Amino acid sequence: MPADKNFHMTPGEFRRYGKAMVDWIADYHERIESFPVMSPVKPGEIRASLPKAVPQTGEPFEGMMKDVDRLLLPGITHWQSPNFFAFFPSNNSFPSVLGEMLSAGLAVQGMMWATSPACTELETHVLDWLVEMLALPESFSSSSTGGGVIQDTASSASLCALLAARERATNFATNERGCDGRLVAYTSSQAHSSIEKAAKIAGIGRQNLRSIGVDDRFAMRPDLLAAQIKQDISAGHVPCFVCASVGTTSSNAIDPVREIGRICREHGIWLHVDAAMSGTAAICPEFRWVHDGLELADSYAFNPHKWMFTNFDCDCFYVADRKALIQTLSILPEYLRNQATESGAVIDYRDWHIQLGRRFRSLKLWFVIRHYGVEGLRHHIRRHIELAQQFASWVREDDRFELAAPAPLNLVCFRHRGGDEINQALMDRLNQSGDLYLTHTRLNDRIALRLCVGQTYTELRHVEHAWKRIREEASILGGTKKGN
Amino acid sequence: MPADKNFHMTPGEFRRYGKAMVDWIADYHERIESFPVMSPVKPGEIRASLPKAVPQTGEPFEGMMKDVDRLLLPGITHWQSPNFFAFFPSNNSFPSVLGEMLSAGLAVQGMMWATSPACTELETHVLDWLVEMLALPESFSSSSTGGGVIQDTASSASLCALLAARERATNFATNERGCDGRLVAYTSSQAHSSIEKAAKIAGIGRQNLRSIGVDDRFAMRPDLLAAQIKQDISAGHVPCFVCASVGTTSSNAIDPVREIGRICREHGIWLHVDAAMSGTAAICPEFRWVHDGLELADSYAFNPHKWMFTNFDCDCFYVADRKALIQTLSILPEYLRNQATESGAVIDYRDWHIQLGRRFRSLKLWFVIRHYGVEGLRHHIRRHIELAQQFASWVREDDRFELAAPAPLNLVCFRHRGGDEINQALMDRLNQSGDLYLTHTRLNDRIALRLCVGQTYTELRHVEHAWKRIREEASILGGTKKGN
Repeated sequence: MPADKNFHMTPGEFRRYGKAMVDWIADYHERIESFPVMSPVKPGEIRASLPKAVPQTGEPFEGMMKDVDRLLLPGITHWQSPNFFAFFPSNNSFPSVLGEMLSAGLAVQGMMWATSPACTELETHVLDWLVEMLALPESFSSSSTGGGVIQDTASSASLCALLAARERATNFATNERGCDGRLVAYTSSQAHSSIEKAAKIAGIGRQNLRSIGVDDRFAMRPDLLAAQIKQDISAGHVPCFVCASVGTTSSNAIDPVREIGRICREHGIWLHVDAAMSGTAAICPEFRWVHDGLELADSYAFNPHKWMFTNFDCDCFYVADRKALIQTLSILPEYLRNQATESGAVIDYRDWHIQLGRRFRSLKLWFVIRHYGVEGLRHHIRRHIELAQQFASWVREDDRFELAAPAPLNLVCFRHRGGDEINQALMDRLNQSGDLYLTHTRLNDRIALRLCVGQTYTELRHVEHAWKRIREEASILGGTKKGN
Repeated sequence: MPADKNFHMTPGEFRRYGKAMVDWIADYHERIESFPVMSPVKPGEIRASLPKAVPQTGEPFEGMMKDVDRLLLPGITHWQSPNFFAFFPSNNSFPSVLGEMLSAGLAVQGMMWATSPACTELETHVLDWLVEMLALPESFSSSSTGGGVIQDTASSASLCALLAARERATNFATNERGCDGRLVAYTSSQAHSSIEKAAKIAGIGRQNLRSIGVDDRFAMRPDLLAAQIKQDISAGHVPCFVCASVGTTSSNAIDPVREIGRICREHGIWLHVDAAMSGTAAICPEFRWVHDGLELADSYAFNPHKWMFTNFDCDCFYVADRKALIQTLSILPEYLRNQATESGAVIDYRDWHIQLGRRFRSLKLWFVIRHYGVEGLRHHIRRHIELAQQFASWVREDDRFELAAPAPLNLVCFRHRGGDEINQALMDRLNQSGDLYLTHTRLNDRIALRLCVGQTYTELRHVEHAWKRIREEASILGGTKKGN
């Protein structure tokens, strides 16, 4: 080994491989429609193909990229394909990738203001922008009593909200002495599974998470919520937390936040609003009705990493009263003490979430907002909703199919009238064909297929093709033929 | 607006801006020593300089990059500077940046095997490699009863370990009914603050987290642990969790895992070992003593994002019995059901951590390990430890200074003999000079300065310069003069 051998990739090599990687990413985007959207591999197939032995000595980078192409790509399900209609989107854009690159290159820690002031201050700045862009309640702004923070996911945001709620309801006694089994929380039967996970994590227990029934639009029934709260109080429980959904994962149902908020205020219960995907719609004035009553909420989250062209992870979590959150999550050991923190003049975001360490995630959001501008973002959100509504109209017009739920925004739940078996087969055939990717849910105890329009590059032709393929497969499966 | 205006950055534009960003990152690395390591800005200064108004229309990317240079860089504390000796490192390397780029470009979700099989299978593969590379217990391997997963941070890993411990101790009853205040957990008085945060989050309560005293090396005293457990059992408490530290944040103290493990086994208590920074040392056979007794642990975490040249976030969390973890964190709503999951033949990593969504983080780890090889990683870990030991020897030889704790690996805690005030002033002057960045702790109720050698590019000359500057400032502050 030469004396100066240090094993590092030199800046010159990085320039070369980095530029090749930029081209790879651009090429990937340009050829993405040529791949089957859902990976067709079998369990274990990818791993069996990978070089087995731990590399004892370093390898040239070119070989690794060959393995990416040859071995990994077949195992990728292409979330960035415009034919991806499954789950909720997790979309992306080139400006966001540039933000991720810069974040990785700087590689600073933003756990406290002092550990890289720009990381904290840009985050506060951009999260305040979003208050204005989505017309969120003024209390969520950092210049008011509250403020926003970037969390990894809506799951973590819901957990933090539940924790702050737990503490506020017990005068912060639970933080000291632990849960005593009396606290109860509420969400609808259609809420995301992360609420149940949060109740388990927080020591509330899932039996103490009340599942409130929904109306025929799958939205929480405030009358049932109010009745359950009264019953719990009579039984000696302590209601602490309600989670309302703006756009459930199953069917995009929108809970009546205003009515739920009034009930929460009456009883001093923390209201969290989970608008993971659908909150983004509020960037368009005509869709701001989704947030009706949000000024009654104590906390709120939506995910630019779902439907605002910002690479995962990027959940924006807001609280109306930052003190409750910070008091819940703050710990200051000696090795983190610093003058800025002690002065009280700065935000230390480590006290706003579960983790200590944190990345410079606001860069990608800043790039995305500045690149598209409000105008560009509105354009795409409107277009996605319009495409979903067109799809819904085609479903309505074909009497082999029916809508399985209202489609208020960009998710359409529909089903073939032929029953669960035919719907399952339809979905499996479509997904296995590689032409598009759909997932399912159950509504009124029957399978419903979900088509969510939210991938950055989805255009009319992709939705038209999806509908064509759905009808083709339905015909093969022998449903009643009809439609143009 | 032209009819085809879609506001997207084109692939061609991305090629151009992406390559400019690659050059920016390489340039940043090449000029990083020209910046003050610790940002000198005052609270609010960066934000006041940022463009205030929400951009209504899109802007050219060049302008944003000008703002990065002009407005953000002054607010950056340069964690990737070789003169960064503060906290624990959060280091990085070019192969890791390439992995982040690829992860951002693919932008897949790895929440379940089915949502992108390669994301899950490469992660399992690389985490099994690390079992071999660090000579971890075989039970941590995916082919045994356990397995590894990438978490964001050691904080999250500790929380997951505590949750699994909580459930195992109650036959999973807490998940159902919530905590009842009887559970107790243990860690040393020197453990990381994240353990206390986890106890609060999990509903255990911090009064039920016992702080066990340490010996004169700041390592947990097993005799005190055993006595406390007995006392708690007599008092009707239910001990569920012990966290041992391999390399405390304060002073790099290494708890006696074997003795602690024996006590845990005797009482059926879950043992988690937090080796966030120092675990990486075990890649070198001569430092594997740090993990003595690890086969008695139920879970373990170390962070390649601290000291293994892998961009944050990348914590590797292992369990000896994956069933306990999965049973604690699993929830399967209808909209996530799929054949692969129901077959039981695959790993769904969403059941191994708090969040649902997850990035393709194993790419960067795979690139780092393949680029450096075990040989290259060992080279740098050895070199860092050697440099820290040289620094410790200089401290020992200068009678104005003393070591404040043993320096087993790459962290040296030292102090000027002149008392807290002079040490605080010394640190402040050094940090404000911009030449290097150190942080402090308190040991035996006196300030100690911490010099941690772990930044990717730190070489002898940087440590020599740090020592020179420390001595210079000490002379100015009027301490007793001595030394070469």
